[in-house]
Amino acid sequence: MPRQRPNHEDSTMNDLRIDGDRLWQSLMDLARIGATEKGGVKRLALTDLDREGRDLVISWAKAEGLAVTVDRIGNVFMRRAGRRPDLAPVVTGSHIDTQPTGGKFDGNYGVLAGLEVVRTLNRHGVVTEAPIEVAFWTNEEGSRFVPVMMGSGVFCGAFSLETAYAARDVDGRSVEEELARIGYRGDEVPGAHPIGAYFEAHIEQGPVLEDAGLTIGVVPAVMGLSWYDCTVLGMEAHAGPTPMGLRRDALQVATRIMQEVVAIAERHPPYGRGTVGMVQVFPNSRNVIPGRVKFSIDLRNVSDELLARMDAEIAACVARVRAETGLDVALERVSHVPACPFDPDCVAAVRGATARLGHASMDVVSGAGHDAVYVARRAPAAMIFVPCKDGISHNEIEDARPDHLAAGCNVLLHAMLERAGVVAVAGREALEFMQE
Amino acid sequence: MPRQRPNHEDSTMNDLRIDGDRLWQSLMDLARIGATEKGGVKRLALTDLDREGRDLVISWAKAEGLAVTVDRIGNVFMRRAGRRPDLAPVVTGSHIDTQPTGGKFDGNYGVLAGLEVVRTLNRHGVVTEAPIEVAFWTNEEGSRFVPVMMGSGVFCGAFSLETAYAARDVDGRSVEEELARIGYRGDEVPGAHPIGAYFEAHIEQGPVLEDAGLTIGVVPAVMGLSWYDCTVLGMEAHAGPTPMGLRRDALQVATRIMQEVVAIAERHPPYGRGTVGMVQVFPNSRNVIPGRVKFSIDLRNVSDELLARMDAEIAACVARVRAETGLDVALERVSHVPACPFDPDCVAAVRGATARLGHASMDVVSGAGHDAVYVARRAPAAMIFVPCKDGISHNEIEDARPDHLAAGCNVLLHAMLERAGVVAVAGREALEFMQE
Repeated sequence: MPRQRPNHEDSTMNDLRIDGDRLWQSLMDLARIGATEKGGVKRLALTDLDREGRDLVISWAKAEGLAVTVDRIGNVFMRRAGRRPDLAPVVTGSHIDTQPTGGKFDGNYGVLAGLEVVRTLNRHGVVTEAPIEVAFWTNEEGSRFVPVMMGSGVFCGAFSLETAYAARDVDGRSVEEELARIGYRGDEVPGAHPIGAYFEAHIEQGPVLEDAGLTIGVVPAVMGLSWYDCTVLGMEAHAGPTPMGLRRDALQVATRIMQEVVAIAERHPPYGRGTVGMVQVFPNSRNVIPGRVKFSIDLRNVSDELLARMDAEIAACVARVRAETGLDVALERVSHVPACPFDPDCVAAVRGATARLGHASMDVVSGAGHDAVYVARRAPAAMIFVPCKDGISHNEIEDARPDHLAAGCNVLLHAMLERAGVVAVAGREALEFMQE
Repeated sequence: MPRQRPNHEDSTMNDLRIDGDRLWQSLMDLARIGATEKGGVKRLALTDLDREGRDLVISWAKAEGLAVTVDRIGNVFMRRAGRRPDLAPVVTGSHIDTQPTGGKFDGNYGVLAGLEVVRTLNRHGVVTEAPIEVAFWTNEEGSRFVPVMMGSGVFCGAFSLETAYAARDVDGRSVEEELARIGYRGDEVPGAHPIGAYFEAHIEQGPVLEDAGLTIGVVPAVMGLSWYDCTVLGMEAHAGPTPMGLRRDALQVATRIMQEVVAIAERHPPYGRGTVGMVQVFPNSRNVIPGRVKFSIDLRNVSDELLARMDAEIAACVARVRAETGLDVALERVSHVPACPFDPDCVAAVRGATARLGHASMDVVSGAGHDAVYVARRAPAAMIFVPCKDGISHNEIEDARPDHLAAGCNVLLHAMLERAGVVAVAGREALEFMQE
């Protein structure tokens, strides 16, 4: 006799809540591995500390009865069985590697929120139809090895396993060697692992939620980005003897383009972003007119169409400046990531759970890349943001409020339950199932 | 019986010319010491190569019968006797130390043009009333030891001998040790050496003469300068998640000030100069909004009054930007050198000689500092500029035309003769005098 799928509006389910203290404690416990003096975490991918972190999370998962699979790029999937093993699991996760001066929450929150969902389901004897999995992806940060988002990138076929294996750190050690050394070069073929739906909870890494005084960001999409190198060639000359009219000052010409980068972003609100983050001036001497200036341009927007318009505007600006000044200006696009709209049903699941839980929320388009962007190429996906203090991340002072973290975890719980389907709660059947 | 001072309009004197080939050859010979592969010269102050260069120039001077004096900071004075030893000498000179990637002409030309004047006087048996001296000043470039223009600076009392002695290079060796080591820590008290008038011939180090197609620059003054460090403090943040309206982008604010530096100079023509030569961006990462930008500002003009107006305008700009953006902007003046108008009579001597010799000329206010600026605090002084290729100096490709160098040397000869007074030419009396 086929079991009935209960309605997720079921009142028992609606009252289900994660344990915010337990979540917080696990975050603090994991943060001890690689803890820095300033209160941050340095746990670079595939180091001994990464192994320690992985081992700790897996030990917690095993204590909850989860089955662990590791793929060839070291992605880890920790599975809580569902009533129907034939269904693709509803997966959540993120990463536990950090920046060299990273914080306690970036990535780690998404993994431990997933673990907290599992603990909650176990404590309340909830049986889901589809399996629930918690994943962590290898080397999201890219601080030690590039490309960034390596594990999820290989998983979705953005680049090959061989490419990832061949990546080396500054000391010449390869990803393949280091995976084997720490014991996380698994057997599963990356991408072979089925995913029915994917949710990722993450600190916002931006100031929008905090500025608006809201608790939950529903993430409908991740911005696309274009990265450029721009080089202005002028003529190096002595700052004193060279009259203004006879100068070819590369920096002055560069500042016109730098200002236009911001102006372009401001012409494409609300999601347009324009940043010059890196500048090199040659010869960079106080009394020498700069002969060459190289700088980075970072343009982002929510859709490929809007980003393409911004791309066209920066190209037009460079052409105009070149014509007006006679200086040689080179503009090279060095990276392009398309915008990633998330799955409408998964986004709706997050939005619905947020509403049912009564959290103040808004849509926040992610300006930063996440593993979810790659996973979305393989499975329906969405993200949940919670505020972080002053919008700061990739910094040892990164911080987040326990109540916000708990709220995001509750949204995750209910979005996952909606997607996985609840079979039974704390009944005899459920207990029997759990003991199978 | 007192000798009559002949009129410098005397036709024999008017026809007197230096030997351009001999001057060129001495430049090429000296340039072999420290010659670089790219055709430049690396002969840093007080190195073994500097000693070699000094020794060679002094050997040439001794061959011409000059008496050599070295002072305690290593300035060298090479004296051709005049008829009246009681008169202060008419001095010319410059420096023979170079930049790390220096050229053959900067400084070296002024010293060897002086030597060529002496050789010319000797060959033609010219006796002058006042003695003629050729000087070279220690460490004009300041590449190895600061302060720059060290020898002339100590000579005129801009800073003390002790300060100069204590200066150390990157390897920790002091000026005092190195002077002693190369044998150029002399006995004479710096500044004690009398100077009746001072002329310095130099390549322009700028593009003005070449651009105008002229041969001689009469230098009425050297610009004053103000150097500033400007620091803009914003808020470092992730380039993606941070909306434009919530940014405190230090670089964007800095570019406004950088553009104003140029605008201020353009509002004070023809001698206003404004340069941002050095920029540091923190953390200088492609996807991080700059939290701090530090840059240099170099303002120059021909008079202290004009420079003060420019100083006031940059201060006002910084105050305005601070008020409009709310960002903290610090402006610190790190160096100030007053404008140096040269002695009208010495300038007139250069102008007159240029006219009599029929060279196409213009007034060129020097934008760069020279030993003559310090010497002018002790004695009437002026400078003579000749064009250099593309206005380039402090570079191994620095170049100048032999005919221009010869023209400048002839102007130097006749300006010095006017100032020193000619007693006799090639007569028995002159020859006797030369043999004394």
